[in-house]
Parts: sequence; structure tokens; C-alpha cells
Amino acid sequence: MVKVGIIGATGYVGAELVRLLYRRKDIRLSTVVSNSFSGQPFSDIYPAFRGVFDQVCDELDIDAVCEKADFFITALPHGVSTDITRKLIENGKRVIDHSADFRFRDREVYEKTYKLTHGAPELLENAVYGLPELYRDKIRDASLIGDPGCYPTCSILAIAPALKNGLVSTDSIIINAASGVSGAGRRSELPYSYCESDENFKAYGVINHRHRPEIEQELSLLAGKKVEVSFTPHLAPMKRGMLATICMNLAGPVPYDHILEAYREFYKGEPFVRILPPGVLPETRFVAGSNRIDISINLDERLNRLTVLSALDNMGKGSAGQAVQALNIMAGFDETEGLSAVGFYL
Amino acid sequence: MVKVGIIGATGYVGAELVRLLYRRKDIRLSTVVSNSFSGQPFSDIYPAFRGVFDQVCDELDIDAVCEKADFFITALPHGVSTDITRKLIENGKRVIDHSADFRFRDREVYEKTYKLTHGAPELLENAVYGLPELYRDKIRDASLIGDPGCYPTCSILAIAPALKNGLVSTDSIIINAASGVSGAGRRSELPYSYCESDENFKAYGVINHRHRPEIEQELSLLAGKKVEVSFTPHLAPMKRGMLATICMNLAGPVPYDHILEAYREFYKGEPFVRILPPGVLPETRFVAGSNRIDISINLDERLNRLTVLSALDNMGKGSAGQAVQALNIMAGFDETEGLSAVGFYL
Amino acid sequence: MVKVGIIGATGYVGAELVRLLYRRKDIRLSTVVSNSFSGQPFSDIYPAFRGVFDQVCDELDIDAVCEKADFFITALPHGVSTDITRKLIENGKRVIDHSADFRFRDREVYEKTYKLTHGAPELLENAVYGLPELYRDKIRDASLIGDPGCYPTCSILAIAPALKNGLVSTDSIIINAASGVSGAGRRSELPYSYCESDENFKAYGVINHRHRPEIEQELSLLAGKKVEVSFTPHLAPMKRGMLATICMNLAGPVPYDHILEAYREFYKGEPFVRILPPGVLPETRFVAGSNRIDISINLDERLNRLTVLSALDNMGKGSAGQAVQALNIMAGFDETEGLSAVGFYL
Amino acid sequence: MVKVGIIGATGYVGAELVRLLYRRKDIRLSTVVSNSFSGQPFSDIYPAFRGVFDQVCDELDIDAVCEKADFFITALPHGVSTDITRKLIENGKRVIDHSADFRFRDREVYEKTYKLTHGAPELLENAVYGLPELYRDKIRDASLIGDPGCYPTCSILAIAPALKNGLVSTDSIIINAASGVSGAGRRSELPYSYCESDENFKAYGVINHRHRPEIEQELSLLAGKKVEVSFTPHLAPMKRGMLATICMNLAGPVPYDHILEAYREFYKGEPFVRILPPGVLPETRFVAGSNRIDISINLDERLNRLTVLSALDNMGKGSAGQAVQALNIMAGFDETEGLSAVGFYL
Repeated sequence: MVKVGIIGATGYVGAELVRLLYRRKDIRLSTVVSNSFSGQPFSDIYPAFRGVFDQVCDELDIDAVCEKADFFITALPHGVSTDITRKLIENGKRVIDHSADFRFRDREVYEKTYKLTHGAPELLENAVYGLPELYRDKIRDASLIGDPGCYPTCSILAIAPALKNGLVSTDSIIINAASGVSGAGRRSELPYSYCESDENFKAYGVINHRHRPEIEQELSLLAGKKVEVSFTPHLAPMKRGMLATICMNLAGPVPYDHILEAYREFYKGEPFVRILPPGVLPETRFVAGSNRIDISINLDERLNRLTVLSALDNMGKGSAGQAVQALNIMAGFDETEGLSAVGFYL
Repeated sequence: MVKVGIIGATGYVGAELVRLLYRRKDIRLSTVVSNSFSGQPFSDIYPAFRGVFDQVCDELDIDAVCEKADFFITALPHGVSTDITRKLIENGKRVIDHSADFRFRDREVYEKTYKLTHGAPELLENAVYGLPELYRDKIRDASLIGDPGCYPTCSILAIAPALKNGLVSTDSIIINAASGVSGAGRRSELPYSYCESDENFKAYGVINHRHRPEIEQELSLLAGKKVEVSFTPHLAPMKRGMLATICMNLAGPVPYDHILEAYREFYKGEPFVRILPPGVLPETRFVAGSNRIDISINLDERLNRLTVLSALDNMGKGSAGQAVQALNIMAGFDETEGLSAVGFYL
Repeated sequence: MVKVGIIGATGYVGAELVRLLYRRKDIRLSTVVSNSFSGQPFSDIYPAFRGVFDQVCDELDIDAVCEKADFFITALPHGVSTDITRKLIENGKRVIDHSADFRFRDREVYEKTYKLTHGAPELLENAVYGLPELYRDKIRDASLIGDPGCYPTCSILAIAPALKNGLVSTDSIIINAASGVSGAGRRSELPYSYCESDENFKAYGVINHRHRPEIEQELSLLAGKKVEVSFTPHLAPMKRGMLATICMNLAGPVPYDHILEAYREFYKGEPFVRILPPGVLPETRFVAGSNRIDISINLDERLNRLTVLSALDNMGKGSAGQAVQALNIMAGFDETEGLSAVGFYL
Repeated sequence: MVKVGIIGATGYVGAELVRLLYRRKDIRLSTVVSNSFSGQPFSDIYPAFRGVFDQVCDELDIDAVCEKADFFITALPHGVSTDITRKLIENGKRVIDHSADFRFRDREVYEKTYKLTHGAPELLENAVYGLPELYRDKIRDASLIGDPGCYPTCSILAIAPALKNGLVSTDSIIINAASGVSGAGRRSELPYSYCESDENFKAYGVINHRHRPEIEQELSLLAGKKVEVSFTPHLAPMKRGMLATICMNLAGPVPYDHILEAYREFYKGEPFVRILPPGVLPETRFVAGSNRIDISINLDERLNRLTVLSALDNMGKGSAGQAVQALNIMAGFDETEGLSAVGFYL
């Protein structure tokens, strides 16, 4: 029985973590921390859990909290995490941090991107980017995981096999992606109100969205050279789900089957990556509520250009699900434990 | 050319008023007042109007504003309106007030319902309830109109002919109604956020919603005796639209045709009330974007009980449209001027 | 290991049954039958299941199918079920039928309501209405279950304690309910198309919806006398979820606490019924994806009238979930097996 | 008074044409033709129009229809239009055809794209592509207009100034676009049902969507050389609206202001094109219900790559609105007549 604490348990990512963990036999959710709602049952904030998970939210007293668990998943705003994480690490805890604070190898990129001074730069060196498909071995023994962003997960996994195999030219990568509104978190701001979001589609963060440097970091490592991309995120009127549409010029002529095979080989044995058959396209509803990512390879032979489509749930493989996947690896559980369920389908 | 000012022009009701009035040839929108956005073009807040209606929002300086127009429509929160309205009236302006402040004949009912001390009780006596189908003649010469609430409009118009003709027993009226989210106004509060409202249906304000006493006031006047009702409002995951489902026991056996005829007679010549043919049911999308109300009469002969259904747009006949209808009457325009357009259909 | 077959596995109720059963350790989904898609993997029709449940759909050859399982859940259109059910029963199978064919004790009511001649009237006598909260003991040994309709489940459970305890007058029951669009099934008909359903709210089946006689049957049995109700169903623009708003006149003055206690007592120990604390209201999103029903009791002391609100998932407690609950009882499993998960919350 | 007939009046484009034309003082909608609903009032199919436009639908008897109007707008499926159009033209009528049949200059491209033999190839030579911003003068005197597709309008107008001015390299154009569901028409097919479309985002027609050759035709004409593009359309869960996100490599270094100025100059005086200020992004809700297109220019100086965003209403500037704009030009009306209204904003 592993004791796990969630810090920031009443945001959407926190609540999804609770949903994924509260029924585990091998895990005890020993503390759910929420400064906004400390002293209140979790089920008061999320009434779906009434009578099911009524645990009272703890306040963020780091010493008290440290007593309660061995693993922590933090789902806090960027910049807020660092102090807490440092203390957890100092107390020998293992931490999966869902903010951007520990995703970057280069402190300067983080600071420029998030317009913050990093609060615990000494931890960056040993922090592991929590994408199991790329870093499974490092995750296993890590003390500190930077849980990847939703757009980066959706983009990197869709591009990695092509880039790693040198199939595409590195200066031609153009990523368009659309996210459900839950990606913005549990926020009472006008642009995310029902009347301003419903029946609307828009781009945002054009040219300089904060997930672009995170994507570029990992793509550059895969390519072994600096990769710069165009990235345009969009907001779609739905709660969950993300779809990325990625265009890349082939580095040279390669037959479709060869490319498909490269993708299949790259993800061989991966429990959550589904390479779709030729001509089959992903839809967000097929992965919503699950930890899966669906990837479809399409080749425009006329232009020697690939269009790769990938879909995941921004609350699943794009955040909470992926954190649980990392937790499973770190704690020595079967990697799919608690994550094998199919999504909502309807 | 009549000069009209809108006070509170950047809320949803205010914006709908602008949409209904900015193109009128017989009206000049001489001032759009918004304390939150004074000095900014209206089209910055509602970019649909960019290049179309870029008028700059005025601040709420009552003396300055009084210079600018003869008619004012105020769309301010309850309790905030009274002082402003008094000053407008003192300056000889004619006012259509969309708050609840001037809807009640009995100050105590207002104060109990809204938990406020009325700020201008001396104005109540001459204020007219702005429902043209019931008070057209009084509206014509009124200085001060209390623009009816959305639920009251939808309910009262659906019940009035039955009650006025003594067809139903007055203690059996049960109103269920559902509204789109815009009824809550332009608000950045969590319960109205996309993720908390989408794919959800709920009741709220059960037993004691603030629109119940307003409904009861008008039904009592129609019946010539005290009428008390059950009223349960609901929130539906859509932007605009309202449907009321009203059950009433027949006072005695009456054939369906007689009842239908009573409704048709009651609304004879009314430009915005459509009594639907037998068996035809209203849907909110058929009135959304318009100033119409659709009413369907259904009789359960087994139980001698009527089910009357009525649909309107809470932003149209339920608020801004009705205010413009009253304005047309007050200013001597054709009552349908600027309101005849069909809604969105799609 | 119990072998279970689903007949009509590719409709929405069928698919939800698959979702609820495919991971059970104590159950083997030994055949999923679909005439429309026989020979195709289930996951071709519901791609969320790709790589997870790829079982091939069987055609409806009753003899072949009988070989494969001991329990069958049929999710077929009304009238189609009877022949198949008879043959299954003749072969000693135990059947949970989700059509209306075996919900009625009185064949004539069924035939009049569904405008069909009953195809297997001899089975009616031993068929059990599959509402565990009322008929748990009979379900345990039954060969044939008529799985209740969604509106009846939502209504009956909300009314039963009041009626059974004589708290309300039996001729005053007025039920308004709203359902998500999935209640209409997996249908390619225009009224259920996105553009005709989205941003719309409407009533349908006013006065004479087919679920009214089913509700009246059970309420009459509870009251020990004939009960007739007004029932108005509505369609809300969402996929899943149902809310019923029920008004009933108190038979005599009773304090609120007494009524609340009667409800709590009636459902004591029930795993899926949550009686909400005073003042707390249900929302469909709190039960969506689960087998739970939330019930809220509200008293208008002024009018001596109850407003009871109940919410469930029409795909869960309103159909597939309830069928699995009955299956658990019949097969001797823990009643909550596979049904304890909280819903989607987001 | 110009007499106009709509052929195919009960599809979504047909209905939007009715909405845009029925109130015109300078136009008489002298016949609305619908084979599916001939003999029925238009308002039976679109009840929003009840009491407002109850004209009875005519059947498609070409001789009878020719008697009734001078201008025709046909909104029929591809391939069905040609015979009818030929007869209309032979009878001296002027026709705006909304199918793809008369959009292509090269019959072979049409036949290959739509997998049809063209039924009236002799009409192609004089047919004019109905995009007023590019072909206003030709439209004025044309007998036959091919009303552009929604994706082509949204894409071409966003690219034209860059291409015409040689600012971008012609082999680098990548178009991603998302459409509301109404783009699929009034169809009762499962993929467009509420439960299959709601809360979902997907791409479709990847690599080879039928609008790609139409886009390429016009871009090639603008560039004076063959232009080939990547085009990926998506379906968003909303009724109306379209957003295109277009990436293009600059042909050489150009400052942002120069590009912006090129766009402003290109569309100088255009009544329906709004070039947004730097940093302002379009959203579909700002153009929904209108005939406007909003265009935003964004430059990634790092990569020398433009991201141009454009938004329109697929039912407005993307189909029916644009057809009315062409009609206004052909008939000598003010080009904005009946089209100046702002959209829905909410």
C-alpha cells in the first residue's frame, strides 16, 4: 500500500487525479490538500463523489502533509509549486509536479517563457520529463517528475517517430491543435463562461504560446539538433479533449508503409498509444475519459508532406492520467493499473 | 428622431438593446452608458459590432447623460437603479427600467423578495408593468416602466387567458420553466463557467425564486383574487431561450376548442403572440433571436388538467425585446418597428 | 464466471452495457449480438474500445447464441424482443429485457400504449419489474426482468416514499422531466441531429408519453389505489442525464423533517440512492456516468406542496446500469459490483 | 422590384437565403421551391417563420418556375444543379448556383474532384466565380455565378493579399480550418447526430477534401502560377461558424507593418472584410449570423512565417450571405442591402 497525497486537489486536474486514484487497492489517497477548501469534504466541491469519497481537504501545512504520504502529485499554478516541491524533496518524498516548473532543462527558457524567476533551480538537473514513452527508465527512479503539458504530450508523441527516424525536415513542422475548455482549469473568468465559450471556435496564444518552448525542447532532443515549430492552439466548445493536426515535409521520398511501420515500431508495446490503421482518423470522443492517445498518419504524395493527427484527453494522457502513469512506474505498479478503462464513448 | 440612451449597455441585456436599436432610422442611440467600460468603444466589448457600431461608452454622469436623450432604458442590477431612475424622472425623462425595482405594486413584496429597502418608493405608484399584452394603454403615457422579468413574461402570458376567463382553479397552478444561461447575465462566476454548465441540467431557486412573487402579483390581478403558485426554474445548457411548462386544473369541464378559442380571442391582433395549432409544440429555437412567444394548449381530458407550454427568448420578449416594444408604444412608433425579424432558426 | 450475452449490443444502451461489463472478472461477455454489424469488431462501431474490446459481433441466430451464455440482456426495440425472449426463456436462459415488452402487468395497457399486440403474453405473469429498490427479492430468482424505463425510474424512486407513507394526495402528482438526447437512442433522424437539437429546449409526448402508464402502474401498486399523473418529458441539449421535478400536494400537514426522515428510512442501505441534505439540489452532471440517483426534498409550507427533484443518468440507473444491478442480484454477485465508480464530474 | 426564386429552399442554405431575403422591400421572393416539401408552407419546415413567412413551397417544375422569377439561387446537391441551371439559363434567367458545379474553370478538375461527369460543360466558360472581392466586375454582368464554397471563401480571402503581393512562397501554404456542423447541411445521418457530434472535435477529408482543388484554382490565378496547398478541415461542436488558420513562409524578410498594410490596401472599401488590428484575433461568434469575414495577420519573426487567421459564418459569407451579395451586385442594388446587420454576438 503506497500512500499518495494530492496537493491542489480541487482544481480540475486534482479532481481527475482523485477520480483515478480513490478506488485503487494498492494506493491510499492519504491526503487531499486544498487551501481554498481546507476543512471541507472533497465531495462538497465535487458532489459526484458524495458518499463515495468524502475525505476532508487538508490545508497546505507542508510539515503536516509530509507526515501523511510518500508520493505527492502537485497540481498547482506555475511558480507556486517550487517552494512546496523543494520541501517535499528535502523530506525525501517523491514528487510528480503538474506545473511547468520542472519541465524545462534550461532554466532560462522557463524563466523567459513564464516570466518568472525559478524558485528552485537546483532541482532542475535531476527532474525528469514525465513522458513514459520517451523517459520510462528515468521515471522509474526519479524523485521529481515534471508532468508534461497537454499540448506538448499530444504534439511530441505524434512527431517523435518521424523525427527520431529522420523522416521529416526539422524546419517544416507546423502544429495546429484544439483543446476543450477544461484545459483552462477551474476558473471563473469571463472568457471561459458558458455564454462566451459555447458555439464559438477561436485561436489563442498565436506564435508565442507557453507550450511551444516545451515542445521545441523535446523535439530538439529527439532530432539531435535545434527544432523550431509553428504552434497555434485553439479553444473548442467542449469540456474535454484535444486534437493536434501536424504538417511536416518529408526529408526525402518515403513510402507510406515505411512511415507507418516506423510509428508502429516506435510505440511497440506501449499500452496507451494506438497507431490507427491507414485512413482511420482520430476523434476526441474516442479517447475522452481515458489515458489513451490515438495517432493517424496521412501522406500527401503530391507534396511529400505528412499530416499526422493525434487525439487525447487533456485531463487524461494530457495531465492527470499521465501523472498516474508515471506514479505507477515510480512505485513499481503495473503501468496500466487504474488506467485501462475505456473512456466515455458517449 | 427620438434620442434614446441605454444605461448599463455592456451587460447582455444592454448589448441586446444595442443590437435591436442601432440600425433604427427613427431612433438615435445617443448614449450608451457603461461604468465598467466608459471611454471604450462598445465594439471593443462586443467585437461583432466592430466597424458597425463603434460608439464610445459614456460614464454614468447623470447630468451629462440627461442632456443626451429623452428616453432611457436602464439595464442595471436590482437596487442600483432607483437613484438613477429618480433623477432621470426628475429631469423629465421617460424610463424603461429592466431591474425588478419598479415591477411591484407593493413595496413590501419587493423589499421582502429582494432583501432591499426600496430607494424610490414614491415612484411605484405611477410605474407601469411593461407587459404590452396586458397594459398597452398605460404604457403609452407612462413615464416609468418596470420591464417584466423573463420567467414572469413567459408564465403570465401562458396563463392569463385561462385565468381571466375563469377556466382554471387558482390554487392548482404549477409552473416549471427552463432558461438558457444568458439569463444569469454577463458574469464571471464559476457556476456559469463553460465546464460547470455544459452537459448539465439542474433546478435552482426552488420554492422561493424571486420571480415567483412577480408572477403571483400579475396572476392575482388577472384573477381578481389572491393567486399563489409553485414555480421551479431550471438552467439548461444553451445560451438563449426559455420554455415554461404549466399545469392547471380546469375549474370545470370545458371542451378543448373552447379553451383554444379563449386564448386566440385574448391575443387577437397581438403581433408577437403565436397560439400554436392543436398538437403543435413550441421549441426555444423557433423564437430565439426574436420578440415572439409561442403558446401551445394541451388538455388531459382524463384528469381535467391543462398543460400549457410557452417559449420565448429570455433576451428578446423576456427582456430587451419587450423593452423595445414598450419604447415603441411610448414613443408612438409602430409597435413592431425593429422587432419583426424572425429569429435564428439555426 | 458467469457468461453473459448482450443482444442489441451496438445501440447506446448495448454499448453502455459493454462498457460496464467488459472488464468484470466475474463475468465473461461471451457474445455481443448485433444484426446491423454482425461480423464486425465491436470496436469498429465504438472506436473508443479499439484494442480494448475488439470482440466480433455475432448475428442473431438464437440457437447459436443460446449456446454461448446463461444470462442475456436484450436491448432491442419494443415488440422485437418478445420472440427472442421467449426462445431464450424456453432454453432456460435468464433474461433482462430492456424494451417495454415485459414491464407491464396488464397486457392491455401495454398493447394500448405501444399500439402492438403482445407477442409473448404468457411470459408476463412471471416477469419482474427490474427496480431493485422495490423488487429486490423477486429479482433474485426471476427468469425474466423487464428493465424499467428511464423516466419511470427517475419518477418512481422520487415519489415512492411519499406515496407509500401516505404523505401526499394521489391525485395531485405532476411530473416534469428533462432528458439528454441519448435517451432517443443511436438514431439518424433529423430531430436528433446536432443542428436541430443543440441550443434548444422543448417538451414532447405531452399528455400521452409512453412512460406515463408505466409510472402509473408502479405508483398505483405503491399507493394501493389507482394513481394517475401528469407527465411532461422534455429534451435538453446534452448527451446524458435526466432530471425530474415533481410537485405533490401533502395529504395533510407534515413537518419537513418527518418527510425527509421517511425518505431516508425508505432507502436505508440502498447503495445507489442518495437523499440530499436539506437545501441541496441535484444536477445531472453529479450522476452522469454512474448508477446513482440523487433525490432532494423541498417543501413549500405556504402551499403544503412538495417539490421533489431527482437526477440520474438515463444510460446508467435509467437503463444499462440498472440492468447490471439486476444482473448482479440475479447472479448472486455483490449488487454494486462494477457499478460503484463515480461518474464523470466534468 | 426584382423577383427572385430559391430552388432548394428547405435545406439550411435555402432557409438562410429566405431569412436574408423575405423582408427585402426591393426583392420579392416569388417562389421557394422544394421537392421534398412542395405544397407545404415554408413555415411548417422552419416554424420560426410561422406567421411571418408562410409561403407555400413550389415543386420543381422548371417551366412553371421560370414564369415566376428573373433571378434564381439554386441550393441543390452537386450534379443535380446542372440540368436545372441549363434550362434556367436557356430561359434567360440569371442564376447563382450554390453547388460546386460552376465553380471550376477546368471541367476535368471538377469531374475528378466530384467523381461526376459534368452535365452542362458548355456553361462553364461564362460562369463567374462568385467572390465579389476578386470578381466584382464580372459578377455584375454575369448570367451564371458559381457561389464559392465556405472553406474556399475563408481561405482565399485570407491568403489573397499575401499571394498577390508576392509576400509568401507558394509552396508553403498550410491551411487548417474548422467548421460548425451546419456546413454538412440538413442531414439525418448518424455522424451529424447530436450524440455523435457534441463534445467532439475531429478532422475529416484529410489530404483530399473537395474544397482543396477549388482553393488551389483561385490561389493559382492570384499567384500567376500553380499553387498547391495542404488543407485539413475539422468539425467543431457548434452550429455555425468557420475559422481558418493558415501558415505561410515569407518569400523574403518583410516587416509586419508592410504586410498589414498590404492586406488593408487589398481590401480597401470592402464592406464585409475586417482586417483586425495587430494582436486582435478573430472568433467565430463575432461573425456568426453576419456576412462578415474577420482576418488577423500574425508574424513569427523567428521563423519568417505568417499565421493568418480568418473567421466567417459558413451560412453567411460562406454560402447564403455571399450569394445575396452577388445578387445585389447583379441586380444593381447597394451591395450591402439586407446584409449589413451585425450577427448574434450571443
